[in-house]
Parts: sequence; C-alpha cells; structure tokens
Amino acid sequence: MTFVYFASSNENKFLEIQTLLEWEKRENKENVKIRFSSPAIKEIQSDSIIEVAEDKAKKAFDSIKRPVIVEDDGLFIEELNGFPGVYSSFAFKTIGNKGILNLLANNEKRRARFLSVFSFFDGNTIETFGGETAGHIATEVFPPGWGFDPIFKPDNEDLTYGELSIQRKNEISHRSKAFRQFLMWYKLKYNHHNI
Amino acid sequence: MTFVYFASSNENKFLEIQTLLEWEKRENKENVKIRFSSPAIKEIQSDSIIEVAEDKAKKAFDSIKRPVIVEDDGLFIEELNGFPGVYSSFAFKTIGNKGILNLLANNEKRRARFLSVFSFFDGNTIETFGGETAGHIATEVFPPGWGFDPIFKPDNEDLTYGELSIQRKNEISHRSKAFRQFLMWYKLKYNHHNI
Repeated sequence: MTFVYFASSNENKFLEIQTLLEWEKRENKENVKIRFSSPAIKEIQSDSIIEVAEDKAKKAFDSIKRPVIVEDDGLFIEELNGFPGVYSSFAFKTIGNKGILNLLANNEKRRARFLSVFSFFDGNTIETFGGETAGHIATEVFPPGWGFDPIFKPDNEDLTYGELSIQRKNEISHRSKAFRQFLMWYKLKYNHHNI
Repeated sequence: MTFVYFASSNENKFLEIQTLLEWEKRENKENVKIRFSSPAIKEIQSDSIIEVAEDKAKKAFDSIKRPVIVEDDGLFIEELNGFPGVYSSFAFKTIGNKGILNLLANNEKRRARFLSVFSFFDGNTIETFGGETAGHIATEVFPPGWGFDPIFKPDNEDLTYGELSIQRKNEISHRSKAFRQFLMWYKLKYNHHNI
C-alpha cells in the first residue's frame, strides 16, 4: 500500500479532500490513500500560483521525504487586476470579506475566479494540476464561514460557496476539479487499482 | 576599497539610497560605496518583514557572493490589521492607491506606519536594521507618483510623501532611518573612515 501525503497548514482543506476521496472510492472503487502532514514551509512570494505550488511541493518533499501533494488556491477578481490572488489568505486575515466588498462598492463588475493548483512531487517527478471555477462576488457576506466562501457565487448557482452543501460544493469547486485531475493522473501512473 | 552591494529589483530605491549616501558623505566625510545589483530572488511569503528581508539577504549573497544589503518595506494600516504590509507591492499593482482609499472609505481611523528593514549579509554576519515613520492615510491621491507615497501623510507634515521634496523625504522617511542605522553600524564594524 502506498500513501501520498497532503502537506498543508490548513486542516480544513484536508477534510475537504478526504470527503472527495471517499466519494471517488465509492464511485470508482479506488484505493488511493492520503495522509495529512503539516511541515513548516516557507512559501515564496510570486504572482504565479503554479510557481508557488511547485516550490511548496519540493520543500514539503525535502521535509517529509515521501511522495507529497500540496495545494495552493486563490480568489482572482477581474476588476481588481487579480487581487487578492495568491495572497488570498493574507488578504482574508487582514481586510477580510468586508474589505473585498468595500473594494467593489457600487461596482457592477464583479467577475471572479477561484483557482486551485495541486502539485505532486516524489523526488523525481513534479506534476501540477489546475482547477478553476468562475463566478462573481456577492454584495453581502453570507453565511459566516471559512475564507472567501461566503462572498463567492459560482456561475449557475443562486448560493455562495458557503451556502452550498458540501456535496454540491465538491461537485463544482475549483479544488475538487484540480484534485480529480491529480487523482486521474496518479492512478494511471501507479496503476492504483492494484495497491 | 570595499563595496557593499544593494540588491533589489527596484532601481528607484537605489537612487533614493544614493542620494542619502551623498548627503551623509558631505556631512560626515564617509566613503562607503554602494553598488546596485538585481539578482533574481524568490522572496518568501511571511507576515514578518524581518524574516522576508533576512531570507532575501542570504539569497542575494548566494547569488552575487559579495557583502550585500537588501531592503524590504511596507505600509501597515492599523484599521486594516496591518494590510497591505509585507505584500504592499502586490497590493499596489492590483488594487492601487484607489483601492486603499476604498477600503477606508468613510473611515475616520486612518493611522498607518511605513516600515523599512535593511538586512546585511556577508556570508557570516547577518544584521538587520529597521526604520519607521508614523502618519495617516490621506483622503485623496496626490500627486501621481511612486507606490503609496501619494496617500501617506507623515505626522507633523501637511504634505504626502509624494509631495515632499526628496530632501525632506530623506530626512524623515522610514527608509532613510533604517539606512542610517545600517550605515552607522557598518562604519563601526569596518572602521570605514580608513578605506
């Protein structure tokens, strides 16, 4: 049995991925196992989310010496030139959802995309997978919840990420799209129905 | 004759430092020489400006193999929990001065500090020097200019950083304070009146 480690400082993300993995297993009889690890990693500053994720995967591997995936995600608001983007977690901690709404006050242009990037590294192979969900920024914060989920309304939904059921969120979210890409590749690479 | 290298991707900062150095020389008959270098450096993401600067100094030294100083600065707005802080240049590129004003719209609490940190590294010694200038965020952008200078009014001044003469700015700015700290230390360490 092989394990892949998911390295992150955010356990919420791991729970989301685990739920997703459970479903995939039920549907496709997979047996990929993912463990959680939270090594201390210094992320680089870069406007490229891919560069941040790949650098993070390499540092995580250096720390835990096991095949590892990491994820980086961000909310990119068109009218704000991609802000808060790769610095979403810092923006959330400082200006919060309220700050984003203030930045767009009275602005009808509210298009935004949530991007997720997973990078896998096993000491030799680096592979990166992306997922994107387009939508717009709501005009109020609802419900109180994790990150920018309460202000992001994905296209074709009447609800924010925060209002959606976990199941529905996992069907359409940027993170789930990127994670499924990874899973597909990983199974092909390691022929994982055998392990 | 020894040189210290100032490593930065921002030539404006070098020009500001050079002007400052010229004055110091005239006043104190110094003969410290600073050269410009712009190695490609991946800054780390950290909420600590000191950690960012020290890591950058080490990477710059690894790249140019000469005693080097680097600078990191940021605008820390009290009411926004320190935003944009160490991510000031990203915030400037995306939401700009207008964005900062929107975040504080109708807010009477506008206290802010500009922080500058210089880190020196010569392969052995790492030393870090800080400078701070307190003030507040203006209610309009004036004049068009570099970075957040047009919206920051230092205490006891009627003008923004952007409106001040270079001379006056160099007397009171966070960067000049930190740089003078460095200079004082460097001269003591290397007895620079002899070189």
